[in-house]
Amino acid sequence: MKMAELSAETGVAVATVKYYIREGLLPPGERTSVNQAQYGEAHVKRIRLIRALTEIAELPISEVRRVVEALDEGRSAPEALGAAQDALTSRYREGRGEERGDRLLAELVTRRGWQIMAESPTRTMAAEALAAVDEAGLLGIKEHLDDYAAAAENVARTDLETIEEFQEREDLVYGAAIGTVLRRPLLDALIMLAQQHETIRRGFAG
Amino acid sequence: MKMAELSAETGVAVATVKYYIREGLLPPGERTSVNQAQYGEAHVKRIRLIRALTEIAELPISEVRRVVEALDEGRSAPEALGAAQDALTSRYREGRGEERGDRLLAELVTRRGWQIMAESPTRTMAAEALAAVDEAGLLGIKEHLDDYAAAAENVARTDLETIEEFQEREDLVYGAAIGTVLRRPLLDALIMLAQQHETIRRGFAG
Repeated sequence: MKMAELSAETGVAVATVKYYIREGLLPPGERTSVNQAQYGEAHVKRIRLIRALTEIAELPISEVRRVVEALDEGRSAPEALGAAQDALTSRYREGRGEERGDRLLAELVTRRGWQIMAESPTRTMAAEALAAVDEAGLLGIKEHLDDYAAAAENVARTDLETIEEFQEREDLVYGAAIGTVLRRPLLDALIMLAQQHETIRRGFAG
Repeated sequence: MKMAELSAETGVAVATVKYYIREGLLPPGERTSVNQAQYGEAHVKRIRLIRALTEIAELPISEVRRVVEALDEGRSAPEALGAAQDALTSRYREGRGEERGDRLLAELVTRRGWQIMAESPTRTMAAEALAAVDEAGLLGIKEHLDDYAAAAENVARTDLETIEEFQEREDLVYGAAIGTVLRRPLLDALIMLAQQHETIRRGFAG
């Protein structure tokens, strides 16, 4: 298809498509004449990924580039998932985590028997979140940490199942990256709706 | 305690504490002389809440005010939880949700037997997230929607349990508001760590 058709198909303005190409997020089309090029299904898919990453995950272009690079370098699905995790937790990249949070997390990881990376922004994020919970005196959350971890295991298992179902390699990598990003606000919203239900069910008058 | 002690106790600069009072987020201290006032434990607690809402939840001051107003107006715990939900989903307040997402959500709500508010920014957020998943062709997530909903129910049930354990009313309302805000990044991080574990456990080479 031509640039105008690609724009119509994806609902993204021509100027924006050109910007994506200039930024190296989208491969250029196959040139058919001096000022015309052809675009294919891969371009449509890539644009949908970029839109999801910028609009839904609200990632800056620099982080979108990291995810896209993982795709272009043909890395494996777990690596693509890792790149998506990394982009989503970029603000923790420079953090060191807090000692108290680190200790609480290490205890939890041992209890659950989790095999995880020794260092990652995700780990820093978890340690900081635990330290904040501890500092706020939210004993309830600390006491129910294993309940939250068990729920997290169920979500992660389901995430991996949704990824495994992709048949083609390209779809699989796409699913790993975009699935992580799109599932997050979905689960957040479902939890809050379930809170509404649970509050009403319990007749919880506070 | 005096203003300087309140600042030392909370680690928040005097100028910032004064800003919170000016903005009506923090009640003024009890005046003991023309230019001195006394502050108590309630001030320490309130400052911790404001810091959590601004730094961890990254809410703008206008949204922090909504949560704080729910506290000051002495509303019930479910109302405080509702105010926290509302602040966290403020960007969906003006949204209308997408028709396709609305339909998918309505079906899910019926299947799960959820009693939820007919309209809320949270509902719009869920509908938009579902529409995005659908548009991205993530069939796996759509097919596993009930698995995610079941995990969401477990998290919400645990959330309510952590809130119920608060003995004093003020603590309970504080727990409802801050618990929702602090538990979110914690669960996000735990899910990503569980993804790392699950990926390694499955020897998932992609």
